[in-house]
Formats: sequence, structure tokens, C-alpha cells
Amino acid sequence: MQNQPLRVIPLGGLGEIGKNMMALEYGQDIIVIDAGVMFPEEDMLGVDLVIPDITYLRENRERVRAIFITHGHEDHTGALPYVLSALDVPVYAPRLAAGLINVKLKEHRIRKARVHEVEPGKPVIAGDFSVEFFRVCHSIPDAMGLAIRTPLGLIIHTGDFKIDHTPADGQPTDLGHLGRGVLLLMSDSTYAEVEGYTPSEQVVGEALEQVIAVAPGRVMVATFASLIARIQQVIDAAALHGRKVCVVGRSMVDNVKMALDTGYLQDPNKVLAPTRALGNLKPHQVVIMTTGSQGEPTSALVRIANGDHKEISIIPGDTVVISASPIPGNETVVSRTIDNLYRQGAEVLYDKIATVHVHGHASREELKIMLNITRPTFFVPVHGEYRHLIAHSRLALELGVPEENTFALEDGDVLEITKEEGRIVGRVPAGHIYVDGLQLWGMESVVLRDRRTLSRDGIVVVILTVDKTTGQVLKLPEVVSSGFVEPEGHTDLMERAAQAALKAVDHKGPSHPLDWSYLTVAVKESLSAFLYEETHQRPLIIPVPVEI
Amino acid sequence: MQNQPLRVIPLGGLGEIGKNMMALEYGQDIIVIDAGVMFPEEDMLGVDLVIPDITYLRENRERVRAIFITHGHEDHTGALPYVLSALDVPVYAPRLAAGLINVKLKEHRIRKARVHEVEPGKPVIAGDFSVEFFRVCHSIPDAMGLAIRTPLGLIIHTGDFKIDHTPADGQPTDLGHLGRGVLLLMSDSTYAEVEGYTPSEQVVGEALEQVIAVAPGRVMVATFASLIARIQQVIDAAALHGRKVCVVGRSMVDNVKMALDTGYLQDPNKVLAPTRALGNLKPHQVVIMTTGSQGEPTSALVRIANGDHKEISIIPGDTVVISASPIPGNETVVSRTIDNLYRQGAEVLYDKIATVHVHGHASREELKIMLNITRPTFFVPVHGEYRHLIAHSRLALELGVPEENTFALEDGDVLEITKEEGRIVGRVPAGHIYVDGLQLWGMESVVLRDRRTLSRDGIVVVILTVDKTTGQVLKLPEVVSSGFVEPEGHTDLMERAAQAALKAVDHKGPSHPLDWSYLTVAVKESLSAFLYEETHQRPLIIPVPVEI
Repeated sequence: MQNQPLRVIPLGGLGEIGKNMMALEYGQDIIVIDAGVMFPEEDMLGVDLVIPDITYLRENRERVRAIFITHGHEDHTGALPYVLSALDVPVYAPRLAAGLINVKLKEHRIRKARVHEVEPGKPVIAGDFSVEFFRVCHSIPDAMGLAIRTPLGLIIHTGDFKIDHTPADGQPTDLGHLGRGVLLLMSDSTYAEVEGYTPSEQVVGEALEQVIAVAPGRVMVATFASLIARIQQVIDAAALHGRKVCVVGRSMVDNVKMALDTGYLQDPNKVLAPTRALGNLKPHQVVIMTTGSQGEPTSALVRIANGDHKEISIIPGDTVVISASPIPGNETVVSRTIDNLYRQGAEVLYDKIATVHVHGHASREELKIMLNITRPTFFVPVHGEYRHLIAHSRLALELGVPEENTFALEDGDVLEITKEEGRIVGRVPAGHIYVDGLQLWGMESVVLRDRRTLSRDGIVVVILTVDKTTGQVLKLPEVVSSGFVEPEGHTDLMERAAQAALKAVDHKGPSHPLDWSYLTVAVKESLSAFLYEETHQRPLIIPVPVEI
Repeated sequence: MQNQPLRVIPLGGLGEIGKNMMALEYGQDIIVIDAGVMFPEEDMLGVDLVIPDITYLRENRERVRAIFITHGHEDHTGALPYVLSALDVPVYAPRLAAGLINVKLKEHRIRKARVHEVEPGKPVIAGDFSVEFFRVCHSIPDAMGLAIRTPLGLIIHTGDFKIDHTPADGQPTDLGHLGRGVLLLMSDSTYAEVEGYTPSEQVVGEALEQVIAVAPGRVMVATFASLIARIQQVIDAAALHGRKVCVVGRSMVDNVKMALDTGYLQDPNKVLAPTRALGNLKPHQVVIMTTGSQGEPTSALVRIANGDHKEISIIPGDTVVISASPIPGNETVVSRTIDNLYRQGAEVLYDKIATVHVHGHASREELKIMLNITRPTFFVPVHGEYRHLIAHSRLALELGVPEENTFALEDGDVLEITKEEGRIVGRVPAGHIYVDGLQLWGMESVVLRDRRTLSRDGIVVVILTVDKTTGQVLKLPEVVSSGFVEPEGHTDLMERAAQAALKAVDHKGPSHPLDWSYLTVAVKESLSAFLYEETHQRPLIIPVPVEI
């Protein structure tokens, strides 16, 4: 059986940032690595989430042995509620990730899931695969890579990682666990464009401590709710300088509580204090930790920046630290938040002007270390848009991985590997599944296309009252619009639009048989021409015939 | 009359990037510096352009003496067609800017405008103001700053500038023209967050030449259509390495023609060639210059990247150079273009991985030079979002401008300056005027608000056929939706929605008098609740009663 090929089938996260999901297949066994969501981009109007298309897993459900989760971020775990509704498979995850997943599954009322906590170094057997977790550094504690033993050889999947020798949680990437003889390396490409090394968390700890030491008044630190390590750094710095720490924002409060309970966060000096304690503290005794570092409109920080937070407003002497970089797409709202904090009178420190954040992904020099330690026979860059995968492939080439053994795959590609060679043998369904409320849509959805039109040009609805027997339009059509013209001052335009619509159908005379599609097209065309002439705009026009 | 105050009234570009416009007022005279547009941000759905609110200028039209244009970019000139429709004032502009403005005015069929070309060093008298242009470097030739003599003293307005001692057009910023004794400095703040010096255009010239020298096949260079200096660098490099240059994309073709005619572009070796010549040239003899560096969906480069350009498709060996940085907001579409070019098989060079672009604004060290040469009594940072203005103000403070003489103004603030002191004395109307087709909207427009709702949640229109005399709803309402649910598979939902709408009005019985507003509210509420229950979405619901 040694000469069966191994199949590598990315279902998400390759050629895009987010919704990470990778399937590995050997003989009758399939295992899955991660099941993440993507947060919608600007042009995905109103969509809540994007999840991977798991058609291939559903069609092969009896062969899917397990899902392995590398760490607790949503782009690696967020699709689990949807995947586990469709597939009954066990999930293996590091302890913190398992905790976060269980909270999420409870929200979705999924009760029968089998989520197992795993320790690094203890292999899990899943069919012909044996999967061992090893520690990596990332921007959440308990992040792991996977060492996967297969009949063909060893596969290393790095998960999201960087090489930080002095991380805030004291758990550096376990380089010693890695080594030669790797058949296939799959490695994080998110920062494959960035030269050098990602700075250590220690740099940020020192910067934050300095800010907290010298700030004349209150310090507010905004970061990701999941960035437990950053919260720890703030707690430590506050303890050192005699300040209390109040946490504001529901998701961060929940995470802090969970992390204290599970030991991922330590508060030996009892500096954490409830928000109600703020009234009794002097400004220089206060640190406020909050969400909103991405400019989320309903977050505490954005409310504070806009001057409409119920409990907290900016007072002279306040220093606000945005301890995060904007995720691509969020630049504008983050900038606006910074501007508004300045307008409220705060001093503001952010990534462009101070070292108050480092990200969680390996830069090029670290990627080289990973490649050089493992010296893989085959290489598949994972996690990144296409140019990141290309940049990472070229790095592998520079470090001696043969070009014909390096594969910049995209979601849905099927790569088949033997001991001798690899080649792309086909495609499986892959793409975006959009989640909006309770609805799921595929890539071909007309809902998004219509929303795009509505968002740019608005809509005009024309109601034609038609005699059922004669086909005669009985009265001047009603014309209703939204997102098209200011209602005030345009009653005249709407009146003339109704006349134009009527004229389009009127000339046919009463003897004409009732032809819905003809009526609709005629009204659409003539109204579109009329409105373009008047406004130079092309709203979506929907004629609605009502039979009487 | 010496003791009249000077008034500084920014009408655009302070607290935002774009739509630059500054009014200066002394006694009975008002002059205006620049009249630019802003390109719409993501949340300005479907808007074509944003222009300044010129209510204040309109109300004081008889006192407005002239508009001075610093350079030919649209964020400094684009509002002129709108402003000159409302105000009959002369415009003074550098030669290239005047040429571009005349083209633009012709498009808008504005014929009676008085646009005067000015030379640096020759003052223009406008009431009590005497305005002299001086050369600065920026990313368009013929960029100027203004030295404005007033009865109170000298005002320096830098325009957009950087200090490049080796610019591509050989016209460095005229530092010798500046000097001490400046009453008020207004200086470009766009890059006030960025440490160090902006690199010289020479760096880019060298990088482009290197690319063109070693590329195995065709080289495509994408940049801004207005970046004449970059086009010159490409022509020079192509001449050096025996390549022809074809220009693709209407706006760039037009600009190249104009720049050749006016002498801003030189082609001594006749390397410019029409696109039809491409067929007779070998790949290593070709450079293609094109628009699309901002990922504009209809641009040549984006069409090429998507494989749907009529004449040009990527062939093996092609090198594409994106010689521009993404303007904030365009990051995603630019990245997508790069990814697609890689997918087509091109080699791609862009700002993150090669020095193929430098921008046109001064970094902090250059801003210090400007402050230190002029040593102004008063300082107003211009051109920038609020945090840029704050960063620039602090720089001025470090360089000895007293804090009480530094003003981070925003659009609409009225700053009054005497020889002794400055203070903000009031506000005039200022803000966004949105241009969409032939319509202009103010900030309070409901059109944009409605488009936002439509874009996120779609729309449901309910048509209620009502008996005019009895107020009775005559039949099951028609329900039409767009951007809400997939039409297929949801006829049942729409049927039940119609029932829900009917139920909301039905229980009143036939004797109830016809009350439109009650009917509308009842339908909206009950349908909203029904649809939220079914889909967890809240579309815009518009009930339309039709009387029979």
C-alpha cells in the first residue's frame, strides 16, 4: 500500500486571507486542518461571514476521520458550527482553542459535537494519519503546528506562526521539534512579502510599559479581544506603575474571564478592577483596556472617539494606545477613529508612530529558517493571497526546493504526491459560501449582484394597475423610489416618470392582449431612458403589474 | 488700514484628503487657493465626486477676486467646473495646470471662463493681495507654491510639495525663493506621519531602467495618467535599451499627446509608437505604458489582468511594473490586480517588493526644512486628515513656532490673524457636496442613507390594493424584493410574507376608515417581524397602497 499517492486539497485560505481549511487524503482516509471563516470584504454587501464550500467533504463524509484545529482564531475555527452541522466528525484542538470552540458551538446550539483537547507531543491517530501538535508562537496563546506522519513520509503544517524567542506567554516556537526528512512542508505565507524578522512581543511590552509609566492621566489600550498576551503585558505594566486595569467591551470581558479561569492570564497583584471602580480612582491610577482597534462601529473605543459612550468620555491628559494594525480593508475606519480621538483631545499612539503592536506572522527571514530546518521534498505555501504564495514559493526555490516540487495551489486544486513527484490532478468544488442572517448563498447568488446595483444607483418601483380582462392599464402608475433622488423637490420628476411609464404601455390600445413580459420590458426601457436623460443615473427599475 | 485682520478660511482639504480649497480674506478682498474634488470613499455609495461647499463664496461673490491653482491634479482643480458655474472669477494657474483645466472646462461646456497662465516670479495683483508663484517638486510638472504679500505680511502656501534635488523634470523646489519674515506658513501635511526624507525620483528612474534592461520579454508599466515625469523616465530608459513605448488607455494617451505638444514630455529618439506597431516588434523590444495602477475596474491593466483586454494579453516572459502606491481605499483592488497578473503568468513588481514608485509629498525632515527656512510667526498645516495636521503642528512646535500661533484648523473654521495674535472667531458652512450624475446632494441627503440600507439588507416592496371608498384591502398584496433573498426557492417565503402583510391590515374590518399612515406602519411592523423571524435580516420595507 506504500505506493498510494497522498492528496493535498486546499478548501480555503489559499489565494485569499481567511477561511482556512486544508484536506489531506490518503487511501480511504481524509483529515481536515482548520475550519475558518473570512470576514466579508467591502464588495460583499451586508454579508455577515464567508465560509468554505465543503461539498467535497460532504460527498466523502464516511471517509472524513477528524478535524484538527491549529489555534483559536476565527479564521481557523469559525466555520466549525456550519461544518459540524453537516458532518459528524471529532475535532482535535489545543486547550484554549477547544474552550473558544465550545463557547461558539453553544451559541449555535450544537450539542453533540466531540471536541477533544490535545497536548503537544501526544499523537492522535486518524486512519493512516498520525497527527502530533507542536508549539508555535502567534498572536494567541496555545497556537500549534502539526507534524503529520503518513505512510509516504512526514508532513509539517506550520499553522499561523512566527519565531519569537521572547514571546509574552513564554512559549517560543518549538524549533527543536522540527528536523530533516520532511516530505511536505505547508507554511504560513501571510507576510511572505515582508523582509527581515517580525519583532518580538517583548518590544511591544517595553513600549507599553514606557507609555503607562509616563502618561500624565489615564491610559486606554485598544487591541483584539483575543490578544490575551497583550492584555497580560498591560496587566504587568499596570502592576509595576501602581495602576488598576478596567476592561471595557463585552467580548474582551468574556475572554479575560475565560483566560483567568483557565490560567492563560495571570493577575497576581489584583490590578484588574470593575468599571464601576473608575469613579474612585485618580486618572494616573487607571488603565482601560478595550476593543475597537479595528474601528468597529459598535465598539467601546469608537463610541468613545465619537463622544457617545455611556460611561467613558475623553478627558484632558488621556492617552489612547491603538495596539493593533488595521486589517486590510479597515484602514479608513481606523484612521477616522484616530482622528476623532485627537478631536476629543486625547493623545493618540498607533502603529505608524510608535512600536505599540507587532503582528503574529513570520517575515521572510523566519520563513527561511522554517524552510532550512525542514528541507522539505515538496513545498506548498499556505495562508495568503496569490502574490504571497508566489513570494513564498520563490523563497523556497532560493533555499533549494526544486521548482517542480513547489506548488502555489489555490482553493479547490487537487495535488497528488508520491515519493517521487507531485502534480495537480484535478479540482473539487471550492469558493465562497456567504452567510447572511440565516441564509447561505453560493458564489452565483443574485442577491449580492442586486445589492451592488441598489447601493450605487438605488431602485425605482413602478406599479401598473391592469384590467385582468382587457389588459388595459387602468390609471397613472405609482412610482416609488429609494436611494435614487432626494424625496423633497422631486415629486415633479416622479410625476413625469409615471407619465413616461404610462406612455410606454398606452400606445398599444385596449385590444392588445395582456402580455406581462412585453409590458415589463417596455416600461423598463422607456423609464430607464427618461430617468437617465433627467439625472444621468441608471437606477434598478422594477415594474410590478397588479391585476384587477 | 494696517490693523485690519487677515482671515484664513479653509473650505476643503483640512481634516480630510482631497477637495482642497482655501479662502483668504483681507478687508473687502477674498482670494481662493485651489478648487479640488475628492474621490468618494467606500461609504459614499454610487457617488461620482465630492466637491467643497462654496456657500460662503457665493454669499460674498462680489468680493471674490481670483482663484489661484497650485498644480494640475484633480484634488486641486476638479471642482472648478462647478465653482465657475456659480462664480464669475478669473483663474490663475501654472501652464500645464491651465491646459488641463481648459480640457476639463470644455468637457463641461463652460466657455466663458477666464483661465490665465502664470509664470513663477511674476506677481498677480488681486485686491490687497499680491500673489507670486514659486516652483515646487510634486508628482506632476509645473507644480507651484504661492508667496502672497498682504498688508499684514508675507504668507507662504506650499501647495503639494516635496524637496527633490534630482527630480525627473529637472525643476527642484525653489528653496532660494523662500526666506525669513514669513507671517503665516501653510504647508502640506499629507506625509507628516512619515519619518525621514521622501526618496528622489532619481531612485525610481534607476530602478525602472534596471527592470527595462534585464526583462526577458515585454515590460508593462502602469502609473497615474498625470504622472508625466514617470512617463519621461520610461521613454528615456526604453531609448537606452532599444525598446519602443506604446501607450494604452485613453486618459494617458491624451495626456501624453498634450505633454508632447506643450514640451513637458520629450521623445528625441522617437521611441513612442502606436499600439498597432506591437505586432511587428519582438517582446524584448516593447514597453507598454498604461493606466490602471489603482485597480480601476475599466482600466487597461485590470482588463489585461482579468484576461479580457481586446488587444493585449499576458504572454510568458512579461514583466508588469505597478509604478504607484495604492491610494487609501484602493489597497484591495490593487492587490487583486497583482494577484490576477501573477495568475496570468506575468512577473509583477510593485511598491512593496521593489523601489518602482516614490510619492509626491514631503516627509518629516523636508517639512522641518520648510519650517526652518521660513520661521513663520503663524502656522496652519494644510492638506491632511486631522491626525496629519496634529503631527505637523507638533513638528512646528518642536521647531519653535509658539503653540498659541499654531492652528490645526478644519474645513469651515475662520481663523483671524493680526500681527500680534491669531484666534478662531467662527465658522462658515463647509462639508461635502456629493455629485452623482447631474444631481448634487448635501451632507443631510437621505439618498445615501437609503443606499446604505439597501446595500446591506435589500428591499421589500408590498403593494396593497385598497378600495377607495371602503378602505378594504381587495386582494392578497403583491410582494417584490431585491437584494434580499435568492428568487429561486423563496416563492413560498414571499407568499407567506404577503399573508402576513394582509393579516396586519385585515383584522380591522371593512368599517374602519381609510388611514394610509396607519396601514403603512401596521404592514411595516408585522412584515419586519415576520421576515426577521424567517431570515434574521431586516430589509427596507416599503408598503405602497394603490387606490381603486
